[in-house]
Amino acid sequence: MWMDTKTEAKEASRNRASLRRCVLSGLLLCTGDMEHLDKYMQEKLFVLQLVVWGLRGVTRVILANNPLSGVLVLAALCWASPWQALLGTLGVLASMLTAVIMGQDSAEVSGGLHGFNGMLPSLLMGVFSSAGDWYWWLLLPACLGSATCVFLYSGLSPVLERWDLPVAVFPFNIIIVLYLLCTGPDNPYFPHHPATPPGLLEPNGTELIAVEVMLGIPLGVGQIFACGALGPSLLILGAVLLYSPLLAAHALLGSAVGTLVGLSMAVHHDSLYSGLSGFNGALGCMAVGGLFFTFSWRTHLFAIASAFLSAYADIALSNLLGTVGLPACSWASTLTATLMLLLTGSLAAYRIPIGRVMAPEHNLCSHSQWEAGDTADRESTDV
Amino acid sequence: MWMDTKTEAKEASRNRASLRRCVLSGLLLCTGDMEHLDKYMQEKLFVLQLVVWGLRGVTRVILANNPLSGVLVLAALCWASPWQALLGTLGVLASMLTAVIMGQDSAEVSGGLHGFNGMLPSLLMGVFSSAGDWYWWLLLPACLGSATCVFLYSGLSPVLERWDLPVAVFPFNIIIVLYLLCTGPDNPYFPHHPATPPGLLEPNGTELIAVEVMLGIPLGVGQIFACGALGPSLLILGAVLLYSPLLAAHALLGSAVGTLVGLSMAVHHDSLYSGLSGFNGALGCMAVGGLFFTFSWRTHLFAIASAFLSAYADIALSNLLGTVGLPACSWASTLTATLMLLLTGSLAAYRIPIGRVMAPEHNLCSHSQWEAGDTADRESTDV
Amino acid sequence: MWMDTKTEAKEASRNRASLRRCVLSGLLLCTGDMEHLDKYMQEKLFVLQLVVWGLRGVTRVILANNPLSGVLVLAALCWASPWQALLGTLGVLASMLTAVIMGQDSAEVSGGLHGFNGMLPSLLMGVFSSAGDWYWWLLLPACLGSATCVFLYSGLSPVLERWDLPVAVFPFNIIIVLYLLCTGPDNPYFPHHPATPPGLLEPNGTELIAVEVMLGIPLGVGQIFACGALGPSLLILGAVLLYSPLLAAHALLGSAVGTLVGLSMAVHHDSLYSGLSGFNGALGCMAVGGLFFTFSWRTHLFAIASAFLSAYADIALSNLLGTVGLPACSWASTLTATLMLLLTGSLAAYRIPIGRVMAPEHNLCSHSQWEAGDTADRESTDV
Repeated sequence: MWMDTKTEAKEASRNRASLRRCVLSGLLLCTGDMEHLDKYMQEKLFVLQLVVWGLRGVTRVILANNPLSGVLVLAALCWASPWQALLGTLGVLASMLTAVIMGQDSAEVSGGLHGFNGMLPSLLMGVFSSAGDWYWWLLLPACLGSATCVFLYSGLSPVLERWDLPVAVFPFNIIIVLYLLCTGPDNPYFPHHPATPPGLLEPNGTELIAVEVMLGIPLGVGQIFACGALGPSLLILGAVLLYSPLLAAHALLGSAVGTLVGLSMAVHHDSLYSGLSGFNGALGCMAVGGLFFTFSWRTHLFAIASAFLSAYADIALSNLLGTVGLPACSWASTLTATLMLLLTGSLAAYRIPIGRVMAPEHNLCSHSQWEAGDTADRESTDV
Repeated sequence: MWMDTKTEAKEASRNRASLRRCVLSGLLLCTGDMEHLDKYMQEKLFVLQLVVWGLRGVTRVILANNPLSGVLVLAALCWASPWQALLGTLGVLASMLTAVIMGQDSAEVSGGLHGFNGMLPSLLMGVFSSAGDWYWWLLLPACLGSATCVFLYSGLSPVLERWDLPVAVFPFNIIIVLYLLCTGPDNPYFPHHPATPPGLLEPNGTELIAVEVMLGIPLGVGQIFACGALGPSLLILGAVLLYSPLLAAHALLGSAVGTLVGLSMAVHHDSLYSGLSGFNGALGCMAVGGLFFTFSWRTHLFAIASAFLSAYADIALSNLLGTVGLPACSWASTLTATLMLLLTGSLAAYRIPIGRVMAPEHNLCSHSQWEAGDTADRESTDV
Repeated sequence: MWMDTKTEAKEASRNRASLRRCVLSGLLLCTGDMEHLDKYMQEKLFVLQLVVWGLRGVTRVILANNPLSGVLVLAALCWASPWQALLGTLGVLASMLTAVIMGQDSAEVSGGLHGFNGMLPSLLMGVFSSAGDWYWWLLLPACLGSATCVFLYSGLSPVLERWDLPVAVFPFNIIIVLYLLCTGPDNPYFPHHPATPPGLLEPNGTELIAVEVMLGIPLGVGQIFACGALGPSLLILGAVLLYSPLLAAHALLGSAVGTLVGLSMAVHHDSLYSGLSGFNGALGCMAVGGLFFTFSWRTHLFAIASAFLSAYADIALSNLLGTVGLPACSWASTLTATLMLLLTGSLAAYRIPIGRVMAPEHNLCSHSQWEAGDTADRESTDV
């Protein structure tokens, strides 16, 4: 009996272990870049493929690349505002289809690189529009703006390629600025709210509420999708967590740095409460901490520096562009991330070539493999 | 008798045919790039050569390259305003002589590439000057500005060459903006009118007149030379037609697109009537439709897209620069054309290397020859 | 006796000659780039090395590279305002230490290339601060701004390297503009004076005083270090003279050209009296006349052209940036010098590769050596 009980216990523990392994591997299948999905999708319908590409594009906005995260983000946008979710989806589709028609590189399209630049202008057009939700005419500039992003992406890539730089969200930033300039605040067809610079307002009369400032940190992650509600922002953070815990940690850290910077420059309280101070810091921190550079304590310090730079540059650019009623969007973090990628010196040693960028955790593994490979190569050539 | 009549008729028809052929070949000699003239001019006086180079430069403004078209354009400018024609001529000469003195590439000088950038600043200085016509002091900044264009052309070309891009009218656009900034509206020596942005004016109170809008389309072609009268504009269009009918068609098409864009953004009526809404569209359309790309239905669609992009970007930039009293000049079309030249994907296949760009009709022929040549090359290397 | 006297006289003259040679060689040791010092310093303490690198950095601001000149410049700054001298020293140290920590190229650090970009933002922060001298909180942004310059220097260098261009003072110009934008005029912690554009002021009511304008010329050299007093400015000019008399002559010439340009554009009198009109011209003139190009009468003419261009561009940019309360700093001369370095044609033949740039006098010698070397090389390869 004793033997039997022991065997049973052993079997039960074995089953539990295998179940655990099963769940874990299932979870692991859903995290990271989900490359296996691409192989699986190759024989499927074009429409299904397009959905996966689009979902990848949705997550590219927040520097992730995982279709399931894309579903979470879209759910978060729907929760915050169905109209915004519709605009975003339309933007992704418009730019992806334009890219397909224009004969862009299929790897870029399937990786969602065209989709993510198309999503942001239409989202922002909705946010800045003063015509209210469900103003159907807005779909026209949203689609056109998203389609134009493909032109800019395709045109900027040969220029930036010379220094192995990503195009990032330059197209979105250019298009949204052009759109807002083109329509102007009093356009009869597409009116919009002018942006207010964070530093040029009346002095802060009220006391700063610490809890609200703390809540601004997760909101900063949501503001990457122009989403200012707490629940959806946390869901977006969850989507990043699903892709890579390291990236999610850096997003929160960057947003906190951005809030700190906002405090140090005495920006208007609303800017802190809404998370607008934090989102450029978050993007700057995520880009350096793990995504474009192999994670290490050194990269981590540079990521914090990048968050500070992004946040300060964002305040400066907001004050500048605010004088003509324009928002600074994510110019600051895009420029800062580009600068960090160009850096020579100790950071350059950790740089991952743009073509090999994947989830931070995967980058860590592959980096050690390269090094091993490089050593092996060197040995083999030495011999 | 019957035989004789028949022979006579045959001979008459033969004569008519040879006459037709003669006239046609004479006409053909005057169209296109007129390369044969360069060979003929090589032994002539330097002054005569300079005149031909200058006339080529005058037409380069409108993306053509034909001395006879240059004569027509100068005639049109003279018709519109002799003072403007004088300023333009002086600008061309000043920049060409500067280029010769500075030891610039002689092929660039003889191709009129330095002349055309020098012509535009002096023309625009005349247009914006609020000191009236025949204000002789203006010749000083006109000459200096035109000469400075050569510096900018020479400095920008190594940068843009990396991506096989033309310098286009970047020098002109930079110089005129610097000049207007430098003098400011209340300068005691060189006062000028501040530019008014098309979207920031009082709301359009009056009804839109359809005929005037239609007339704005050919005026848009004239506005490339800052010429707002119908007769000279048509003469300028005729000059383009002489160089290349395809280019003239695209000029009109682009101007029409620009007017449409102006209507869609509800710009001020004067902007539509004067053709100012159209000229950036016209330039954007001409650059893509036939000049820098081999003509085909695909290129044609891209040309229309380029016209739309140019026109929208022009409104956006006019609104932006208008806040500091500056005009947007041809920044929009220059940037858009540069973007189109950088595009990857299906358009890049039609791209003509900058060194081989000629009249659209000639490009069409030579493209098929290259393809044949390439095939022949491939076959010969295969064997 | 006669013989003795003769011998004595001979000996005395020999002694005088050797003394003269001694003094001359001692003087020569202190002029130019003082490369021998680097060899001598290699075995010394790190702190001593840092001092030499820092002093080189101080002189790099005025395009020189000589530790003794650095001592003179620091003395001049101390004379003008000890607080400014402290800020400047701190800026140099902060940026150099950041460069060392970030693992930047040691040749760049020891050449003072990182130091000079760090010195200027902290100097300018002090000048624009409206909180008065000895406002200790200012040390915080001064250090941070100087440290950030290293990021920009390191990031811009791979981009500009493609065209063999120096990074020059682009980092300083970017950082100071960002700082002033970030804080804004009414910042509660770091308030600053808004810049006033030279052309947008009330009309000049008073008569122009010729002597004051003349005094503005040496002041223009001092304004490179934001120093507006005559004595220190002359001392700074002396520091340049110690490095290279040719450079000092071009500095004065450029400042005179800048003043002339200011007169031609009727800028406000204070701008002329304080030397602010002159300093961009001085920098533009120095860069072309001898430093980046071998000195010759042709280069000299281009140097004057460069001074004119810099000065006009400075007025234009001051008017533009002044609309949002920003100063034009040395944007104009930096951009103009970059343009001159890119020029093709006859000037390009005199271009010195960036890695070989030294004192103008040394450049002259080495250029003739290269030519001899090149000829020798050609002959040896011919055989």
